[in-house]
Amino acid sequence: MTVRIAVAGASGYAGGELLRLLLGHPDIEIGALTANSSAGDKLFKHQPHLLPLADRELLETSVETLKGHDVVFLALPHGHSAELAEQLGESENRTVVIDCGADHRLTSADDWTRWYGGAYAGSWPYGLPELPGQRDRLVGARRVAVPGCYPTVSSLALAPAVDLIEDEVVIVAVSGTSGAGKSLKPNLLGSEVMGSASAYGVGGAHRHTPEITQNLSAAAGRPIKVSFTPVLAPMSRGILATCTASLKDTGAVREAYEKAYANEPFVHLLPEGFWPTTNAVLGSNAVQLQVTVDEDLGRLVVVAAVDNLAKGTAGAAVQCMNLALGLPETTGLSTVGVAP
Amino acid sequence: MTVRIAVAGASGYAGGELLRLLLGHPDIEIGALTANSSAGDKLFKHQPHLLPLADRELLETSVETLKGHDVVFLALPHGHSAELAEQLGESENRTVVIDCGADHRLTSADDWTRWYGGAYAGSWPYGLPELPGQRDRLVGARRVAVPGCYPTVSSLALAPAVDLIEDEVVIVAVSGTSGAGKSLKPNLLGSEVMGSASAYGVGGAHRHTPEITQNLSAAAGRPIKVSFTPVLAPMSRGILATCTASLKDTGAVREAYEKAYANEPFVHLLPEGFWPTTNAVLGSNAVQLQVTVDEDLGRLVVVAAVDNLAKGTAGAAVQCMNLALGLPETTGLSTVGVAP
Amino acid sequence: MTVRIAVAGASGYAGGELLRLLLGHPDIEIGALTANSSAGDKLFKHQPHLLPLADRELLETSVETLKGHDVVFLALPHGHSAELAEQLGESENRTVVIDCGADHRLTSADDWTRWYGGAYAGSWPYGLPELPGQRDRLVGARRVAVPGCYPTVSSLALAPAVDLIEDEVVIVAVSGTSGAGKSLKPNLLGSEVMGSASAYGVGGAHRHTPEITQNLSAAAGRPIKVSFTPVLAPMSRGILATCTASLKDTGAVREAYEKAYANEPFVHLLPEGFWPTTNAVLGSNAVQLQVTVDEDLGRLVVVAAVDNLAKGTAGAAVQCMNLALGLPETTGLSTVGVAP
Amino acid sequence: MTVRIAVAGASGYAGGELLRLLLGHPDIEIGALTANSSAGDKLFKHQPHLLPLADRELLETSVETLKGHDVVFLALPHGHSAELAEQLGESENRTVVIDCGADHRLTSADDWTRWYGGAYAGSWPYGLPELPGQRDRLVGARRVAVPGCYPTVSSLALAPAVDLIEDEVVIVAVSGTSGAGKSLKPNLLGSEVMGSASAYGVGGAHRHTPEITQNLSAAAGRPIKVSFTPVLAPMSRGILATCTASLKDTGAVREAYEKAYANEPFVHLLPEGFWPTTNAVLGSNAVQLQVTVDEDLGRLVVVAAVDNLAKGTAGAAVQCMNLALGLPETTGLSTVGVAP
Repeated sequence: MTVRIAVAGASGYAGGELLRLLLGHPDIEIGALTANSSAGDKLFKHQPHLLPLADRELLETSVETLKGHDVVFLALPHGHSAELAEQLGESENRTVVIDCGADHRLTSADDWTRWYGGAYAGSWPYGLPELPGQRDRLVGARRVAVPGCYPTVSSLALAPAVDLIEDEVVIVAVSGTSGAGKSLKPNLLGSEVMGSASAYGVGGAHRHTPEITQNLSAAAGRPIKVSFTPVLAPMSRGILATCTASLKDTGAVREAYEKAYANEPFVHLLPEGFWPTTNAVLGSNAVQLQVTVDEDLGRLVVVAAVDNLAKGTAGAAVQCMNLALGLPETTGLSTVGVAP
Repeated sequence: MTVRIAVAGASGYAGGELLRLLLGHPDIEIGALTANSSAGDKLFKHQPHLLPLADRELLETSVETLKGHDVVFLALPHGHSAELAEQLGESENRTVVIDCGADHRLTSADDWTRWYGGAYAGSWPYGLPELPGQRDRLVGARRVAVPGCYPTVSSLALAPAVDLIEDEVVIVAVSGTSGAGKSLKPNLLGSEVMGSASAYGVGGAHRHTPEITQNLSAAAGRPIKVSFTPVLAPMSRGILATCTASLKDTGAVREAYEKAYANEPFVHLLPEGFWPTTNAVLGSNAVQLQVTVDEDLGRLVVVAAVDNLAKGTAGAAVQCMNLALGLPETTGLSTVGVAP
Repeated sequence: MTVRIAVAGASGYAGGELLRLLLGHPDIEIGALTANSSAGDKLFKHQPHLLPLADRELLETSVETLKGHDVVFLALPHGHSAELAEQLGESENRTVVIDCGADHRLTSADDWTRWYGGAYAGSWPYGLPELPGQRDRLVGARRVAVPGCYPTVSSLALAPAVDLIEDEVVIVAVSGTSGAGKSLKPNLLGSEVMGSASAYGVGGAHRHTPEITQNLSAAAGRPIKVSFTPVLAPMSRGILATCTASLKDTGAVREAYEKAYANEPFVHLLPEGFWPTTNAVLGSNAVQLQVTVDEDLGRLVVVAAVDNLAKGTAGAAVQCMNLALGLPETTGLSTVGVAP
Repeated sequence: MTVRIAVAGASGYAGGELLRLLLGHPDIEIGALTANSSAGDKLFKHQPHLLPLADRELLETSVETLKGHDVVFLALPHGHSAELAEQLGESENRTVVIDCGADHRLTSADDWTRWYGGAYAGSWPYGLPELPGQRDRLVGARRVAVPGCYPTVSSLALAPAVDLIEDEVVIVAVSGTSGAGKSLKPNLLGSEVMGSASAYGVGGAHRHTPEITQNLSAAAGRPIKVSFTPVLAPMSRGILATCTASLKDTGAVREAYEKAYANEPFVHLLPEGFWPTTNAVLGSNAVQLQVTVDEDLGRLVVVAAVDNLAKGTAGAAVQCMNLALGLPETTGLSTVGVAP
C-alpha cells in the first residue's frame, strides 16, 4: 500500500516534523509540499535537516496544489485550516484531511468564539486515541483534528484519575520554544530565551485551556475546572507537565494508571522511583509519566513528558493517519528518544 | 566602617556568589576563605570569575580559621553548620554568623527531624526581611538563618495574599541547576541537563516544603498546606515560581501586593501586562512578580522570578548582614540584572 | 538475515546511541548488553530514552557475556578494548568486532605510545569508508576501528583538498559535551557548561590530533601538519569544525569536493550560499559541509557539521557493520536530522 | 564630579548593557534615553532588568534630545552614527561622543567603502587602550570609536606576539547570539540557536576582518593577514577566540604576554595550566587569556575570552569615557564575572 500525502505549511516546525516522520514511514510517498510566503523556495532553505527532500520546491498553499493526494496534512496557523479543508472536501471527498491546527478541536461553538473568535468550523474526530472512546472515532475517519501539544500531555496525565479527584486541577507545563513556531517575536530570540524561564498566558488565558477542560470533562462525565499555566524554558523541544489535584480517595491511584495505559503503545507509566525527562522522549512518539500521592495533602501529582512537535503534534498526526487508513497504529512511529 | 568577613565553603556556588557580591560592597574586607576537600588550592581554580581574589589560598574550614572576623558566612551542606556555629559562638560571641544552609531555618524540632534528621540545632532569626515581622528580628541580630531559594520566592509570591486565599496552595517552581551545587551527579551533567526539563522531589518530598509551609502559615496565622514541585530547567541560574490558590475573595488582590511591597527595595510588582523572566533578575537581589486572577476558577495565580544564588541565597545573606550590622539594607546590592 | 549483536558499554552515551540506531535497523536482534559498574541494573536507569529495551538487565562486560554474537560493539574507554578483543578473537573468530574506542585506530606504534601510552594493540581497518581506499578494506572485515568524532569530521572536511593545499592545516572544532561521555567532572556540570564556551587540549595536546594527521597524510601521500583545537560549547551533541589551509591553487576547489562526495550517501556538500548547522544533522548519519576560498589570503575554509554520537561514533559503527556483513551500507541509517 | 550622559539606542542590547554599567558608576547621572521605533515606550518594556530606570520614557533619537549632555553614547546600527555625530559636533563641541558602532573605526577610506559602503566618516581615536599607543590618544578625547567585539578579543590575543609570528594569523571565534542584537531573523530564534553551532561570514566575509587586520598590522608595523571565522554558539553572551599563527621563534612567547599585560587592569594572562571560559568573564570588563606553543608545528595558540557586550562593547565604552574625562580608568568597571 502506498499512500500519497501532501503537507500544507511545510516550511514551519510542525510541517518539518511531519516530513521527518513521514520519511521514515514505509507506506508513504511524499507529494506536494506547500507554503505561503516561502512558496517558490527549495525546501532545504527552511528545513536543512531533511536532506532527502532538499531540492523539493515549495508550492503555493491552495486547493489546486493539495488535491489529488490520499492524505493532506494541514500545518497552518489557526483560522487558516477551516476554509481550505472545506474546499478540499468539495473536490476530494475520499481524501483524509488531518488538521494540526486548532480549527476543528473544540466541540463547543461558544468556546471557539470566546477563545479564537471568527466563524466556528465545527469539530472533527479528536486525534488522541488514548483517551476513552476516541480511538474508535479515528479508525477510518476522513477528518482528524490533531490535539494541541499541551492538551495532549495534560489530558493523558490526568484522564485516568478523573474518577478519583475533586473537580479542579492545576497544571503547570514547562515547554520548549518550538511550540511557538518560527514567528519572529523578540521574546523568542535565542538571546532572550537562553538562560531564562518565563510564564505566559497566565490566569487561564492560554487557548489550550478550553481544550484541556473539554478532554477532562468528557473523560470524567462531569465538569472539570482547569488552572493551566505554560512556562517557556530554554530548550527547543519538549513539554514537562506537572499536574495536581485533590484526591477524593488516595488509594488505587497507581492502579488506575497501570490499567489505563497497560496496552497503549505510546504512553508509558515509568517504574516507581523514576521521573520523566523531556530529553528521553525527544523525537519520539512516547509519553513518559509518573504518578504519586502527596500524602500530607491528599493530593495527586502527575508529571508527564512529551515532545511537543512529535507526539504533541506531528507524531499524533501520523498515528491518526495510520488509524484513519487502517494501517497498524504504530507504523513509522517510535518510542525511542534521541538522547542525550 | 570596615567589616572583616570570612566565608566557609568558598569553593562552592553559594560561596562564590557571596564573594562576588562582597567584592562590590564598600564596607567589606575579605578575610579567611575556607573549604573542605579543596583546602590548599588557590581560589582561582574553583572561582575563575573572581579575579581580584584569584591568588587567595583556601584554608581548612575550622573554628581556628574562621574566628576573629566580624561576620562569618557559612555556605555549607546542611548538617555542617550547626556544630561549627556553636563552636564559633563559644569563642566569638560578638561575631555575626550567617548560615546559608538549612540547619537553623525550621522552628519546629519535629519538622527538622522528619525532613533532615539528626540533632535539631534550634532556629535563628529568619533572613527574609520582607515577610511580616521578620525585619525587626534581623536588625542587630548575631545569628541569621538565610532562607532556602524556593521558600524565598514562594513565600514572597504568596504571603501578601494569605488572608484572601483558601488553605491550600500549589507551587511549581522551575529552577536552574546551580541550586544543586557542584555535586557530581550524573543527572546534573551538561549533556543531561541541556535540552531537557525534569521534576524532582515530587509529591511533597522536597525539603523546602516545610519551610514554605512555615512561612505561609506564620504569615496567615493559620495552617497553610503547600503542594510544592520543583522542576529543573536547562539554565544555570534562576527560579520562576508559579503559585496558585483558590480565592475566598477575588477583589483587592492587586492592592494587597501593592501594599505589601510598596516600600520594599528588592521586591517589585511589575506593571500590569508584564510577566517576570528569570534573566531580568540574574545576578541581582530583585524579585520580580506579577499577579492575576483566573476569573473562571476564582483562582489566584502569582508568578515570581528570583536568582537562586543572589536574592535566593547570597544576596539575602548580604542583605541580612547589612541589617545585623546596622548598615543601610541595600548596601552592596542591586536590583539591576545581567541580561540578556 | 538476522544479525545478533552485543554492546559492551551499553550504559554510556556511545552505547546508548548504538542501541538507538540498532533498534531501527531491520536486520538486527539485540543480544547481550554489558557494563562495568552498572552491571545488574536495568537499562532504563541509564538509557530512559530506549523504552523497548527498558527492562533489559546489564550484564558484566566479559568474554563470556559477549561471545556467541555475530557482531560485538565495544563502546569502552580507551585501553579497555584491546584485551577484550583479543580474548574474543580466540573464542570467536567469525565474530565481527567493532571498536568504538581508540585502541586500534593508529597505524603507528610510536604514535600510540606517545599519545595513549601502554601496550600497542595494532591497527584495524579504519571505519571511515568515505576516505580514499578505506571502503574496500571494510567490506567483509572482521575487525573495525571506528574513528574518533573529531577525526571523522575534520578528515572529511579536508581530504578532498589535500592536493590543493600547503602542508599545514588549522582546525578549530566546536563540540557538544556528550563527546566527553558521562564522566563526572566538575567542568562538565550543566551549571558550568551552559552559557559558556571553553577550549581544551590546546596546543596540539588532544589525542585526536595524530589520528587527523594520519588520515590527511595518507590521503595526501605526504606529511600534513595539523593544528587542532577543540572547543566545548553549550550543547549536548554536534561538532562544527572550521578547517583552513593555505591554497597552492585557488581554482577548482569546489569541484574537488563535488567530485569526492558526489556518490557518497552521507556526506553532503551544501548548495552555495548555505552553511552547515549542527542541529540539521542531529541524530543523523549525515555530514553537511560547505567550502569557500578567502580570496584575500588564498586560503581554503571548510566548515563541516556532524553529530559526534551518530556519524561521529555509533552511526559510523553501524555503517561499518553493514559493510562488514555485506548489507547495503545505508541500512538502518538516515540523513534526516532531528530539528529544531 | 557628576557627568550627565545620554544613550542613543537605549532599547537594544548594547544600550542596555551601557545603562547597566552606568547605573553602577559613581559619577554618572543618566539623562536622555533614545530609540527609534520604540520611542514613546517605557524602558521597562525593552530592558526589564534595569529596574531603577523602569519608568523612563524612550525619546526619539535626534540632536535635540541628545544635546546638552556631557557624554553621548551612540549604540546604533552602522551607518547611523556618523551623521548624528556630525550634527552633535556642530551644536556641542565640548560633548564627548562615544560611538559603539562601526562608523568611525576604520582608518582606511578604501576599507570602509569595501566593507560597509556609503560615505566614509573618517576615523576617531580607537577605544582599545590596551593596544600599543592607543591609551594616550584616548585621554581627553572628545570622540571615541569603540572597537568591535571580535576585534577586541582577537587583537588583545595576538598583539603581544606580532614580532614573534609569521604574517598570517588564523582566528576562529565562538560567540553568543547577543552580538547580533535584537534583529528578528529566523536563524536567531531560540529554537534554531539552542543545541546548535553554525559559522557565518566565512571566507573573510565578516566586517570585523579589516578591523582586526588594521589593529594587528599597526601593532606589528607590517601587514598582517587575517583569516577570521566567527561561529555562533548556543549562549547569549561571550566570545571565545582561538587564535593561531606560525612562530618565527618559539621562545619567549609567554614572556611577551606577561610583559604586555602586567599592568593592564582588565587583561589577565591566566596561570599556566588554566584555560579561559566565557562564563568567568560574563558581565565583567575582563579579558582572560592563555597562550601556548604547539611544539610539533612551531605554532602559537592563544585562547581568549571576553563578554561581547561588556568589554566587547559597553564596558569598553565606559572605560574610554573614563579616559576621556580624566577619571580613573577602572571606575564603574569590574573584573568580577557572574558565574556560574
